[in-house]
Amino acid sequence: MAMDYKPYKKAFEYSYTLGAFPTIELIKTKPQLVECVIIHSTFTGESEVRKLCRENGIRTVTGDRMIERLSDKENVFVIGVFKKYEEELAKDESHVLLVNPSNMGNLGTIIRTCAGFGITDLALISPCADIFNPKTVRSSMGALFRIRHRHFASFEEYRAAVSDRECFSFMLTDRAKSLPEVEKPSVFTLIFGNEATGLPDEYGEKTTPVIIPQSELVDSLNLTIAAGIGMYEFTEAAKRAVI
Amino acid sequence: MAMDYKPYKKAFEYSYTLGAFPTIELIKTKPQLVECVIIHSTFTGESEVRKLCRENGIRTVTGDRMIERLSDKENVFVIGVFKKYEEELAKDESHVLLVNPSNMGNLGTIIRTCAGFGITDLALISPCADIFNPKTVRSSMGALFRIRHRHFASFEEYRAAVSDRECFSFMLTDRAKSLPEVEKPSVFTLIFGNEATGLPDEYGEKTTPVIIPQSELVDSLNLTIAAGIGMYEFTEAAKRAVI
Repeated sequence: MAMDYKPYKKAFEYSYTLGAFPTIELIKTKPQLVECVIIHSTFTGESEVRKLCRENGIRTVTGDRMIERLSDKENVFVIGVFKKYEEELAKDESHVLLVNPSNMGNLGTIIRTCAGFGITDLALISPCADIFNPKTVRSSMGALFRIRHRHFASFEEYRAAVSDRECFSFMLTDRAKSLPEVEKPSVFTLIFGNEATGLPDEYGEKTTPVIIPQSELVDSLNLTIAAGIGMYEFTEAAKRAVI
Repeated sequence: MAMDYKPYKKAFEYSYTLGAFPTIELIKTKPQLVECVIIHSTFTGESEVRKLCRENGIRTVTGDRMIERLSDKENVFVIGVFKKYEEELAKDESHVLLVNPSNMGNLGTIIRTCAGFGITDLALISPCADIFNPKTVRSSMGALFRIRHRHFASFEEYRAAVSDRECFSFMLTDRAKSLPEVEKPSVFTLIFGNEATGLPDEYGEKTTPVIIPQSELVDSLNLTIAAGIGMYEFTEAAKRAVI
């Protein structure tokens, strides 16, 4: 069968991992979704990628021009082609909920951070940045494949799909509780808003608003930094509660 | 005098703030360094930028084509032209020290985070990403002008220039102490390495190595996330010590 993959578009039913690292993560965690792996002709010798493909019965093809066409950066020698998917979240686990994130690099970084803190369920309120865009996958360092994710049309739809739990909205409101002081349950949802506009006011009513103490020198912290600090604090508190 | 500014190069003695927000930060904090402010002809009416320029005796010029040439993004209507500078660090304050950071977006984000947590002294070990590149300035959201920064050739040179204090190196070594548990003094230096290679082993000997507890699902956290969490934990601890 002749294959001719085109530069990624959101409407595609498949996407690409650009580079060896995310491709290895893909094969290790979601082998059943891999259509094939494209390898550059200069990428010779026995490699972890080739070994993993063989072990999982995944077809490899050589395609220098295809790699050039699919990747916008240099130094890409391996591309994985995989089917898009969506999974049910684990109802009873802790979650991160992102409301309308707009930047793919930020979304990927937050996914990597979720995996880093063992929060393996990510909910997204649409519209939001394309989670399967190769840029998102790349900035997640392939961690996308290690967590579950699901899109929802509204907070209410999300709420109805998961177990009862306290939800914490990170926002710069006077009513917000200070992150170090807020009481932290062992199961929680941490909610973060859009890069430019933050969270709609209604989240301050429907959930527990939380603020990260910060100086007057900046308007706000970067979204990915706020998310990282929130996840760190809540997962550390959950560990202490267990001990 | 006819002015003709060229697209930014590292060798220039001046640089640019792209956009109204960082330009306002520049004028508010470093008015004496501003050579002029270029305003797009469609940016009409009385604005904060024009008011600040008038108050500080800063010349404004109209230059649509110059703006187009100097900014690689759309939606830039204001550009500040400023002289580069370097300052002495405050010897007795807490610092962040970055060893060979290579990405300008990351450097800018870390600068914004430093300002956010009131750590207003940043040391850099060369080689490192260009702190005055308009991309760095932009991703700092202009916070660059609110902190002091200085380049050093080595850790020893840095050490000799500041007061005696415990330095903490964020690294993934078995010998590292866990961030939540490590004892945190009120004056400290937090050290972070390069995005791809981390910190050289010697930092584990010369300083106190610290690790952010993280899951097996990722190789490491993103540099900016690790820096944000480190700054949050140490500044919160210092606040608690004072109370």
